[in-house]
Amino acid sequence: MNYRNVLSILGTVLLAEGILLSVPLLISLFSRDDCIPAFGFSALITIIIGLILSLAIKKTSDLTAKDGFIICGLSWIVLSLFGALPFFISGHINSYVDAVFETVSGLTTTGSSVISDVESLPKSLLFWRSFTHWIGGMGVLVFILAVLPLSQSRTMHLMKAEVPGPKVGKLVSKLRFTAQILYAIYIVLTIIEVLLLLIGGMPLFDSVVNSFATAGTGGFAIKNASIAAYNSPYFDGVITVFMVLFGINFNLYYLILLGDIKSVLKNRELHVYLGILILATAIIAVDIYSLYGSVFESIRYSSFQVASIMTTTGFATSDFNQWSNLSKTILVTLMFIGSCAGSTGGGIKVSRIMILIRNSAREIKRMIMPRAVMSVKIDGKPVENDTIAGAHSYLCVYLLIFFASVIILSVDQFDLTTNFTSVAACINNIGPGLSAVGPTGNFSAFSDVSKIVLIFDMLAGRLEIFPILMLFNISAWK
Amino acid sequence: MNYRNVLSILGTVLLAEGILLSVPLLISLFSRDDCIPAFGFSALITIIIGLILSLAIKKTSDLTAKDGFIICGLSWIVLSLFGALPFFISGHINSYVDAVFETVSGLTTTGSSVISDVESLPKSLLFWRSFTHWIGGMGVLVFILAVLPLSQSRTMHLMKAEVPGPKVGKLVSKLRFTAQILYAIYIVLTIIEVLLLLIGGMPLFDSVVNSFATAGTGGFAIKNASIAAYNSPYFDGVITVFMVLFGINFNLYYLILLGDIKSVLKNRELHVYLGILILATAIIAVDIYSLYGSVFESIRYSSFQVASIMTTTGFATSDFNQWSNLSKTILVTLMFIGSCAGSTGGGIKVSRIMILIRNSAREIKRMIMPRAVMSVKIDGKPVENDTIAGAHSYLCVYLLIFFASVIILSVDQFDLTTNFTSVAACINNIGPGLSAVGPTGNFSAFSDVSKIVLIFDMLAGRLEIFPILMLFNISAWK
Repeated sequence: MNYRNVLSILGTVLLAEGILLSVPLLISLFSRDDCIPAFGFSALITIIIGLILSLAIKKTSDLTAKDGFIICGLSWIVLSLFGALPFFISGHINSYVDAVFETVSGLTTTGSSVISDVESLPKSLLFWRSFTHWIGGMGVLVFILAVLPLSQSRTMHLMKAEVPGPKVGKLVSKLRFTAQILYAIYIVLTIIEVLLLLIGGMPLFDSVVNSFATAGTGGFAIKNASIAAYNSPYFDGVITVFMVLFGINFNLYYLILLGDIKSVLKNRELHVYLGILILATAIIAVDIYSLYGSVFESIRYSSFQVASIMTTTGFATSDFNQWSNLSKTILVTLMFIGSCAGSTGGGIKVSRIMILIRNSAREIKRMIMPRAVMSVKIDGKPVENDTIAGAHSYLCVYLLIFFASVIILSVDQFDLTTNFTSVAACINNIGPGLSAVGPTGNFSAFSDVSKIVLIFDMLAGRLEIFPILMLFNISAWK
Repeated sequence: MNYRNVLSILGTVLLAEGILLSVPLLISLFSRDDCIPAFGFSALITIIIGLILSLAIKKTSDLTAKDGFIICGLSWIVLSLFGALPFFISGHINSYVDAVFETVSGLTTTGSSVISDVESLPKSLLFWRSFTHWIGGMGVLVFILAVLPLSQSRTMHLMKAEVPGPKVGKLVSKLRFTAQILYAIYIVLTIIEVLLLLIGGMPLFDSVVNSFATAGTGGFAIKNASIAAYNSPYFDGVITVFMVLFGINFNLYYLILLGDIKSVLKNRELHVYLGILILATAIIAVDIYSLYGSVFESIRYSSFQVASIMTTTGFATSDFNQWSNLSKTILVTLMFIGSCAGSTGGGIKVSRIMILIRNSAREIKRMIMPRAVMSVKIDGKPVENDTIAGAHSYLCVYLLIFFASVIILSVDQFDLTTNFTSVAACINNIGPGLSAVGPTGNFSAFSDVSKIVLIFDMLAGRLEIFPILMLFNISAWK
């Protein structure tokens, strides 16, 4: 591995983060809150270290797939360690592990929090907290690819490592333009949501940070009661629609821009994604009808919560911990399915699950007709064997990490539902779970060991396991 | 498909069951209990229908893999429907669905019960209940293969469909002898356990039925408090050792008979199986030490429960529902791992999990070195790609059935832990779960729909899914 290259890209990542940290610094200066030194120091140290590291650059050599994974994994860890500084230095989070947990939760667009009273935080810190969602949603490396003129061969593997889904498609032949198109769509959709929230009368600051949290499918709220605090069917509706939109593969928006509506309408992952959303909303609406007593309210709360959990955003408009076991079970199931590949959402991803199910169906058919040649098809195109093998090993490693995490968490002696849904909420980048970590609870009561496990799970979930796992593989470092 | 052949084998299966039903009939006659008519009628009707069907035989044609699956699936359903008659006719179980649940639970060696007071049952019914464990443990079709002179080509696929594990090895070239060897080992081990329990002073009847339940890794007890009722460290010890022994691949016993101790000692699945048993026992012993206050008692209860759950037997010597969350989480994890392939136990199986983990490790290595050719090896031999693909599709379908079952069960509105562990206990053929279905609870409170789902799960678990799934595949019936 070319260490100088790795260090130089890490430097660029830190430089970018330092510049992004200046935005909350400005807010802090403007609102004269107690975070001016925290943000000032954090931005400065991040920029300085970033500058030093980026000087290590050596232009000649290419990046291999292995390098891509390692750089991606390291970048996210470094981003989290530095991004946690404002929380810790300002004293609003007393433990550095907690500060890192909150930052990783932000960057990975999870939205699990260790803060019980978010309303007590100054605006600048609330902004940074939600801004991490927006930064992490589309990805930091994708951002750098969009901004900096790097050579094609150096960048492909970086993008592959950071963009979620069983298979990453380049939109256009030049990767830099792909990254730019993705960010352009991301920014435009975010701005539209901000405007729609403003029109409904939400304050500017709230509109912006809530849109950040929606766009990244993150879920950090700036009210203790999450979105329920606004108690507005209009806001609920807008946010529901945008959560669903940000859970869709961004490639489809590019196809819309190209005028290829036909391909979008025929996209099987989209059908399955919307189908599950509608079906789950309907079942839960019927199930919770007795709690709310009106069809409109039942659908309002059920559609919001279904969209919030399946897109892995994690906003809440009701304490679904109080819902019936049928509704809770459906929500837990949705946690694992997650959003579409190539979206800002987490989970196992709809298309990966489609590949796994279709391949199983093929294997069963092969038992009846051992000699028949059959291929797994999605959208009419055969899925490559490597992609299928990748989806299988993903599932296996995912389950291993899942069970190991639940066992380590159980040392803290919380109940099974808490432990199980904590890990589910973190590895799938959702945010709230059930029981002690339900919408009205938080993750502060866990031990540091458990929090570090959950930090690992959040990173593994966001980066789809392998970049993080690769860091533990000694042979990858050679 | 050759329907006459299928019917003829189903007839033979019923004939065998009718004869086996005569054993509890004799006990009923001997002890003059109220089940004489129930067993008399059940045995008679089963034998008559068995005789009629077996006449449909047509000697010429061979069985395909598809036929093997279909026959295996149908056999187990027919066995369950007729095996349930004594419970229902005698009036000791009022609902036929409940009676089928109890019988399927017996035959699949699950041990989940709908009966709250087993001590009120007559001896003949208790015997039949435990006897179903012993019959189902090694398999009915294997029994028929051992007894009847069928042609090689007709039988291989039957054995493949019924014997658990990712890959079935023939011990000797002639399948009939393989089946005979397996049953001989099974009978001898059972007899040794009976003798050891008798030596410790357990009554003959109890020794026999408890040995049946151990041998099949079933777990039906004849006391409401399960094995705890005897309150004897000696019995606990004997049963712990035999649960572990019956969870080992029977092929290894054959190797011991051949004097090939070396291969047995080198067997990787055995190492992993025993390693997990020891590790889990140690952790739980430390964790429950404060409850029992002595090292000996902690190890006694923890080793028994770990062996009982991992081998999927399901006996209890303590109410582990009251143990800490760490211990409960470890037990739940063991539920999924299960025993060795080719044993009488259930679960996903140690070797299948080994294949899945090693293949994932290979896939990760392939990301670093895309051009390297690597194979997955177990015991020094490369695992065929078909076996790996089979393990993957098994895992996927297993998870699908698991989640679908939990969702359907949750309509009954029990808590998540109850639903989750009910399905885990049934699909892995264990018996008790946690919460409402813990060692002191039972499955009677579920609705008929939930019970039918759990019946499906038990059968799917015992037959490793595909024979049961094949019954729902229309093209397989052609």
